[in-house]
Amino acid sequence: MRRSRAFIPTAKEAPSDATLPSHKFLVRGGFINQQGAGLYNFLPLGKIVLEKIRAVVKEELDLAGCNEVQLSFVTPIGLWERSGRSEAMGKEMLRINDRHQNEFVLSPTNEEAMVELVKNRVTSYKDLPLNLYQINTKFRDEARPRYGLLRGREFLMKDGYSFHSSTQDMIREFDLMEETYKKIFTRLGLDFRVVAADSGAIGGDGSKEFHVLADSGEDTLIVCQSCNYGANIETIDEFKDKIDELNEKSYEELKELKIDQKCSCGANLHFKKGIEVGHIFQLGTKYSAALEANFSDENGRSKPFEMATFGIGVSRLVAAIIEQNHDESGCIWTKESAPYIVNIMVSNVKDEAQMSLGEDLYAKLRAAKVDVIFDDTKERFGFKMKDAELIGFPYTLIIGKELEGGLVQIFDRKTKESISVESSSAYDKIMELIK
Amino acid sequence: MRRSRAFIPTAKEAPSDATLPSHKFLVRGGFINQQGAGLYNFLPLGKIVLEKIRAVVKEELDLAGCNEVQLSFVTPIGLWERSGRSEAMGKEMLRINDRHQNEFVLSPTNEEAMVELVKNRVTSYKDLPLNLYQINTKFRDEARPRYGLLRGREFLMKDGYSFHSSTQDMIREFDLMEETYKKIFTRLGLDFRVVAADSGAIGGDGSKEFHVLADSGEDTLIVCQSCNYGANIETIDEFKDKIDELNEKSYEELKELKIDQKCSCGANLHFKKGIEVGHIFQLGTKYSAALEANFSDENGRSKPFEMATFGIGVSRLVAAIIEQNHDESGCIWTKESAPYIVNIMVSNVKDEAQMSLGEDLYAKLRAAKVDVIFDDTKERFGFKMKDAELIGFPYTLIIGKELEGGLVQIFDRKTKESISVESSSAYDKIMELIK
Repeated sequence: MRRSRAFIPTAKEAPSDATLPSHKFLVRGGFINQQGAGLYNFLPLGKIVLEKIRAVVKEELDLAGCNEVQLSFVTPIGLWERSGRSEAMGKEMLRINDRHQNEFVLSPTNEEAMVELVKNRVTSYKDLPLNLYQINTKFRDEARPRYGLLRGREFLMKDGYSFHSSTQDMIREFDLMEETYKKIFTRLGLDFRVVAADSGAIGGDGSKEFHVLADSGEDTLIVCQSCNYGANIETIDEFKDKIDELNEKSYEELKELKIDQKCSCGANLHFKKGIEVGHIFQLGTKYSAALEANFSDENGRSKPFEMATFGIGVSRLVAAIIEQNHDESGCIWTKESAPYIVNIMVSNVKDEAQMSLGEDLYAKLRAAKVDVIFDDTKERFGFKMKDAELIGFPYTLIIGKELEGGLVQIFDRKTKESISVESSSAYDKIMELIK
Repeated sequence: MRRSRAFIPTAKEAPSDATLPSHKFLVRGGFINQQGAGLYNFLPLGKIVLEKIRAVVKEELDLAGCNEVQLSFVTPIGLWERSGRSEAMGKEMLRINDRHQNEFVLSPTNEEAMVELVKNRVTSYKDLPLNLYQINTKFRDEARPRYGLLRGREFLMKDGYSFHSSTQDMIREFDLMEETYKKIFTRLGLDFRVVAADSGAIGGDGSKEFHVLADSGEDTLIVCQSCNYGANIETIDEFKDKIDELNEKSYEELKELKIDQKCSCGANLHFKKGIEVGHIFQLGTKYSAALEANFSDENGRSKPFEMATFGIGVSRLVAAIIEQNHDESGCIWTKESAPYIVNIMVSNVKDEAQMSLGEDLYAKLRAAKVDVIFDDTKERFGFKMKDAELIGFPYTLIIGKELEGGLVQIFDRKTKESISVESSSAYDKIMELIK
């Protein structure tokens, strides 16, 4: 993409209500803008990041044998009445009336619709297991939407639902999804922890959350410094009376606190702050029994499906990546999430040699299927560099005055360090760096 | 994908309200199912087709220099009040109240939101032209939703909006989009016509529709048998009093009717039935003036943007493809839209030689990035063939008894003819056919 033809409206000022780095930098960097309370538009750069995350999620789920579907976002209230959740969902579930005064709901989640879809279409144990997922719009009418994409009302979520003939097989899938989610968050370049999220009535670990570690995280976790144990403090009896107190502390304050208890492995435990980006949950027969969704087992007996459910906050991840990866100048995208991994910046677009090299490298990198943007705008060099730092391209290849001596610079956004390379080896060096 | 692990719930019976082939076959073939009036779920095969169409649309638009965004689906009513369309949109625009009794709208289209997005972010003629599009959920509260995906309430639409500093440049983009749309519908393998849709106040042809020709189409067109002229009869004065009468006639009846008028090229005109799948429209300054969205021209004068808008019914295309491509047995997908282009069918999965060849070809075709499904189910051969015809895979490679003599069959869904080939050359033959 040529920057001169792209719509990337960067700005100096952040919204007045923005307190978190991701909220400030995603708006200032031209990734998103607010349409209404808790309602966000994704501008071209934000849309590219969102689709990159979606693609990683889809690829890993498909490899794990899941089937993608897309359920209607507007769902009839009847579904929710049959499961008994019509009341339980409270005001976060927005109810609407159509022109005929029939009542519908903007889907906040889709257990009911997914069970109805499978009911009577999968009838035998022979057709199980089945794991259906979608990556689709959700709506939760938060009382106080805030923090940009982290607590919006309309958001993009991956929600998956699996159907099984036995608890044992459901747990097998639950474990497979834990591994799949780890692959997804690892590919996205995130430092994350899987933590226990309930006391584990079924199968020992019936509910696990995936948290991106970030100082600004809303949740407080304890993690072992030695083994891979972790837990959300909200699920631990010992912290029951201190949840609010601990959640209100900043990470700076928390990390000074000592935890008396030891991990079962014997090592010390520490506090961390996390942003929940995934949740896997063993449902058992809660929804299948309520909605009478049954299958025939080997002996011809009718039984409700054993189920599990698996969620990933896809649009939330856009913000979580930045909460974990930013500095005072702006965003620092990871390789797999960056809207463009290379930014070719021509310092003086009126200089023929600079532009010619820029065009040449742009064409070569595109031919090699590298996600590259070509900053061919007439702005001052200083402005362009500030902009590149705010947006957070992992590498900026600077073609400036030093080209007279045959050199170009490669700027690493994360370290903010530049290296000089011969212009003739710039392509090879970039290809090596982005590997 | 292995058929034994896929969720493809085909059915013998069509919904009782289904009158059109696409409605019947898409439900029976396990592509979609109804969640509520005018609300459809896309099951795995339907989702794949939808994403294939989306990918073609996106690829061609990006090549033409458009920028993809994603606007919030729920939009504040204020936007619509400022443009004056709050009343004009009528009951098709569904209004909703959130928990704080603020009024919102489920987006039926997005002119206002797109103008607000560009307003104050693009301020100079130097940053024009700009063409922003999204492929996103829309909702229109139809009084009588029917015909499956052809007249649903929730649907997937590509809506694009371009911004220009002059009428001349807007018309240039309008022409570019006409060519781009032609490429899209051609790639999808469709027989379509571009028809005039208004008297052309601006620039001569201010509004054009793209129609997929199909006997069951809702619209009546006149098309020239010689040149590429075509028009929707609703836009032609001579037919003003006969629109309803003509629209109610079947294509069988229509094609018997003679048209007295000649085309301006001198040739005869004929009636056709069409399904509208695209619409491009020169807006001028209607929305930019109403919403005071201005830019500075070369002389520093403030002017409202010249605009055009471009739509494609993405989920509607899933049905339009089948309205044009089906027979009494089911769907006949075009190459670019098929959920899987090759279906490998093992007649007797207990026969080791048959299964072994099936696995081998499945692995080879997957390695060659061919979209292939492997029917490894235990059903009878006759059942599997009927199912394959209903779903409409372009080619089914049948591995059956003839393998004892070294032969396999390749079944062409469109012609329903089979050819026998040596099993050793089956891969090459398939690769040749799907090119």
